[in-house]
Amino acid sequence: MNPKELHQDAVVIDGLVIAKWNRELFEDMQKGGLTAANCTVSVWEGFQNTVNNIVEMNNLIEQNSDLLLKVHSTRDIRRAKELGKTGIIMGFQNAHAYEDQLGYVQVFKDLGVGIVQMCYNTQNLVGTGCYERDGGLSDFGREIVAEMNRVGVMCDLSHVGSKTSEEVILESKKPVCYSHCLPAGLKEHPRNKSDEELKFIADRGGFIGVTMFAPFLKNGIDSTIEDYVEAIEYVVNIAGEDQVGIGTDFTQGHDQQFFEWLTHDKGYARRLTRFGKIVNPEGIRTIGEFPNLTEALLKRGFSEQAVRKIMGENWMRVLADVWGE
Amino acid sequence: MNPKELHQDAVVIDGLVIAKWNRELFEDMQKGGLTAANCTVSVWEGFQNTVNNIVEMNNLIEQNSDLLLKVHSTRDIRRAKELGKTGIIMGFQNAHAYEDQLGYVQVFKDLGVGIVQMCYNTQNLVGTGCYERDGGLSDFGREIVAEMNRVGVMCDLSHVGSKTSEEVILESKKPVCYSHCLPAGLKEHPRNKSDEELKFIADRGGFIGVTMFAPFLKNGIDSTIEDYVEAIEYVVNIAGEDQVGIGTDFTQGHDQQFFEWLTHDKGYARRLTRFGKIVNPEGIRTIGEFPNLTEALLKRGFSEQAVRKIMGENWMRVLADVWGE
Repeated sequence: MNPKELHQDAVVIDGLVIAKWNRELFEDMQKGGLTAANCTVSVWEGFQNTVNNIVEMNNLIEQNSDLLLKVHSTRDIRRAKELGKTGIIMGFQNAHAYEDQLGYVQVFKDLGVGIVQMCYNTQNLVGTGCYERDGGLSDFGREIVAEMNRVGVMCDLSHVGSKTSEEVILESKKPVCYSHCLPAGLKEHPRNKSDEELKFIADRGGFIGVTMFAPFLKNGIDSTIEDYVEAIEYVVNIAGEDQVGIGTDFTQGHDQQFFEWLTHDKGYARRLTRFGKIVNPEGIRTIGEFPNLTEALLKRGFSEQAVRKIMGENWMRVLADVWGE
Repeated sequence: MNPKELHQDAVVIDGLVIAKWNRELFEDMQKGGLTAANCTVSVWEGFQNTVNNIVEMNNLIEQNSDLLLKVHSTRDIRRAKELGKTGIIMGFQNAHAYEDQLGYVQVFKDLGVGIVQMCYNTQNLVGTGCYERDGGLSDFGREIVAEMNRVGVMCDLSHVGSKTSEEVILESKKPVCYSHCLPAGLKEHPRNKSDEELKFIADRGGFIGVTMFAPFLKNGIDSTIEDYVEAIEYVVNIAGEDQVGIGTDFTQGHDQQFFEWLTHDKGYARRLTRFGKIVNPEGIRTIGEFPNLTEALLKRGFSEQAVRKIMGENWMRVLADVWGE
């Protein structure tokens, strides 16, 4: 198979997209050959505003049903593949929307939320994010992990602090993930994970989605798709080719106001970070260019089988495990 | 003045009451000669349910206006004294009701909430309570402390963890308090404060209200009012007679269901503690017996001036300072 055919034939999963949800974006997902994506529907919002976001996403899926299919299980993802549509996995980047209710884990699961990051950059009731001192997983957080295990929701640790992450990895009875991260071995950054952290999660059956968010890549906004593939290879060398996948962190379509909201605690309080200019690596500037990634991985020397795993089959296996299928 | 006259003449402030709010209780407050009390209107509730509790308290104050007066300032407390009524200071035992909104500090202050405990037993967005590992004051917590300072709300640390407490004491530009605590020097307990902790807050201008919650007293439920006065004396010996007051923690009128709610995280999740049988010390079993406390303090050898300070004038001074009067 040539790279293009392989991409068309493969199950392609993006472990993290936080784009502006509209038809233009969904058409670009189709162009990029995405089988499914973990689409963020909550960051700083509490329970009710998150439900409202889900209603909005439900409406969009309905209005764009020629392109989209809502995902509750990996069967839905296989079905999206058969139909040539993109499956929408709803996900949170912050367990904040669970508020203080363990029962909301099941409620949101029933609404389609299958992946939830424990903290987003700062402290919540569960633990602490990676932009402040981290006191670790709270006792309520342990109850939340147990409930996510029971209900079948994947724990995501990408923006979570080092200590909380380690304790979630040890606490969870199911594999957990960094859905979108980069190795600190290529660039030091509070959001990037050390070799030890990558090895720690991999050794315990966890999963690593590699992001291409340019500010965290070695060459910053001058990065190319080759820099991204280098980062993937770096992580594969630590975690092996069965526990690594893609989690782009595409923010396509958002304006400056959105990034201001994202980079302030609670969406409005103190500033946590500045991204500067955001431009994705050359060769994969938009979701529509996703096929270039399959090509670049093959060019780097990955086997067809390894490419299939990294592009989606690994995500499928771990999601089926966590979702209890 | 004999003890009875002194009690009638003095400003008497109870720094913490979490009783069942009804006319019977308010009549007992009158009998006890209470000039004002910090009355808990939020423990596990979020924003809206706390507002609902305040509405309920407003209605009770209105319906019992022959006995009660709502407190927004220490002038209101002086006025309650003149009128022979009891002033109701509304307070939280958990900053949880602020949710993720710094602006709610002003909103609740406008509604009459002048004292707020940073955490209740467990972790919230601000810090961690005294019944789990404590990672300290969060960065959002620092913003909350600054806002409470600006608006004029007293930070209470009674149920807060040791590390978070220390950091709030250092962070706050205004005096903070343990509104209701006992010395660990008389009985070891997660809720009791060590000599070092009592000295630390006192040395930085903070305030200590001494509780008589029997399970935390040396003689448990066999305690008498003398045991309570011993604890007050113990704290005065560390903090001096100007920074100590009363914070009974009266739970009068509540049933077992209420204590079950209180002793589970979030009101329903894992159990945090068991109080066992709750009975207040002999001699001060109900709020109506408050005059016995003035008598017992005098009997212990405290001067009339010291008794006036401990019974209420110290609270008045520190509240005026924190409330910016």
